[in-house]
Amino acid sequence: MIMYLNGEYVPRGLALIPVEDRSFLFGDGIYEGVRAVGGKMFEWGAHADRMINGLNGLRITFTAAQVNALEEVCEQVVERNGLVEGEAFVYLQVSRGAAPRAHAFPPASVHPTVFVSASRLVVPRAMRDTGCAAVMFPDMRWKRRDWKTVNLLGNVLARQAASEAGAYEAILHEDGIVTEGAATNVFAVFDGVLHTHPLTSRILPGITRIVVMDLIAEHKLMVREEPIPVAKLASAEEIFICGSTTDVTPVVTIDGKPVGGGAPGPLTVLLREAFEARLYHAAGAGR
Amino acid sequence: MIMYLNGEYVPRGLALIPVEDRSFLFGDGIYEGVRAVGGKMFEWGAHADRMINGLNGLRITFTAAQVNALEEVCEQVVERNGLVEGEAFVYLQVSRGAAPRAHAFPPASVHPTVFVSASRLVVPRAMRDTGCAAVMFPDMRWKRRDWKTVNLLGNVLARQAASEAGAYEAILHEDGIVTEGAATNVFAVFDGVLHTHPLTSRILPGITRIVVMDLIAEHKLMVREEPIPVAKLASAEEIFICGSTTDVTPVVTIDGKPVGGGAPGPLTVLLREAFEARLYHAAGAGR
Repeated sequence: MIMYLNGEYVPRGLALIPVEDRSFLFGDGIYEGVRAVGGKMFEWGAHADRMINGLNGLRITFTAAQVNALEEVCEQVVERNGLVEGEAFVYLQVSRGAAPRAHAFPPASVHPTVFVSASRLVVPRAMRDTGCAAVMFPDMRWKRRDWKTVNLLGNVLARQAASEAGAYEAILHEDGIVTEGAATNVFAVFDGVLHTHPLTSRILPGITRIVVMDLIAEHKLMVREEPIPVAKLASAEEIFICGSTTDVTPVVTIDGKPVGGGAPGPLTVLLREAFEARLYHAAGAGR
Repeated sequence: MIMYLNGEYVPRGLALIPVEDRSFLFGDGIYEGVRAVGGKMFEWGAHADRMINGLNGLRITFTAAQVNALEEVCEQVVERNGLVEGEAFVYLQVSRGAAPRAHAFPPASVHPTVFVSASRLVVPRAMRDTGCAAVMFPDMRWKRRDWKTVNLLGNVLARQAASEAGAYEAILHEDGIVTEGAATNVFAVFDGVLHTHPLTSRILPGITRIVVMDLIAEHKLMVREEPIPVAKLASAEEIFICGSTTDVTPVVTIDGKPVGGGAPGPLTVLLREAFEARLYHAAGAGR
């Protein structure tokens, strides 16, 4: 496997960073996960914009132009790993850089660490057809979830809980409302109307969520961007999660109890198909 | 500078870790900061216990015996850097280890990354005599602050705000109450009674806080472990912060406004002196 690290393409075994890197010591970095189809980055512009927003939020000195230039790096990493044919997951991280440990920002002479990797994505189509299991888990994360930082312990513990329960995703809740999934956004259907948490600092503005909102408008479906009470979740007709590796995946059980009829509902199926059409059409490549 | 990394003592320039280390990708690690005086770790047992508790919380496979064995490593790192004479700050971190990126825990075959470094500590005695400035800052951290994890962005941004305001520390507040400092615990005096946040998951159980509570008992001072409302802070007679590099340091201004008489108060001075006596006596070494 070839990785990109600070301007160089190196084998995985040589992708080494100083132990004083601030992402290691403080989780002080911003990342992105991008879907590559046929060697092209799906919704690159939206990923780049979100990364720029997070870097600005943390005040990491890495310009919009530098972020935009990473698209070509992503394509190179995909190509050098023989992933142009088919699908891949591309991971990017910009850390504030390595410096002697002190909480406050290091001097401007310290350069960010830039890392890009890519791996084969095997899409679990069966799970998208029949739906996945989810568990409920407390949302333990910090208060700026709109920045895609590597302070991810809340997500790690949630996904681990899901994994141990034999589920695919953990649905996070806080103050009695559903925020999002550990690595996805959550939609639920009540009385035929889609509901999802509004874009606040409480959730990550998912790129797949943007596309799904666009498809909802295109198909003239009804949607409300408002928090979903946990207490109401049991009465949802349909629930689905979405994300850059999850696409649109139906949730058919939560903590072992069936959602709606226990099978993917009609709005979920419609949006899943519309999303996949967009994903594979946009990339100009077949599955 | 010599650092300890995974069983070896290496020069700083060779202290390199795989970019896929989970502390780099997720902030998935536990750390400690220990005061070394005359080559000995102050309150090692308490630091080790807190580290064991955090590792258990995150379920990182690193036993209590392994943590306890790090005392000797700390002493070695101090010695190899010529820091036995005088004072040093020793930093320890145990990360869940390096593995291909996935939120849930990696297989048991993945070994934790263990890192120890030490640096000269120059104690700012003038600031302890005259007191420091602090700023108020929102507590943005996640919900398990009792585990000393490297998910530290909330602390980083707070300390940066303090630094930009020319202050030493940021006092964090949430839901109208004072939690703690960005890297210290906070005590305030009202009507001659000491107040500090109780030990809950909302704050870090500071080792210096333990010693200060012990000294408070020894000197038969009155203390209440209950949250301090932010609104009440302006009427505090005294405020001090404490931590492993801060010891007991008076806070004499908050956001530019004087605390009490604008000078260190009597309980603060008493506890500072008692703490330093314990610190230098315990270590069996003079300043």
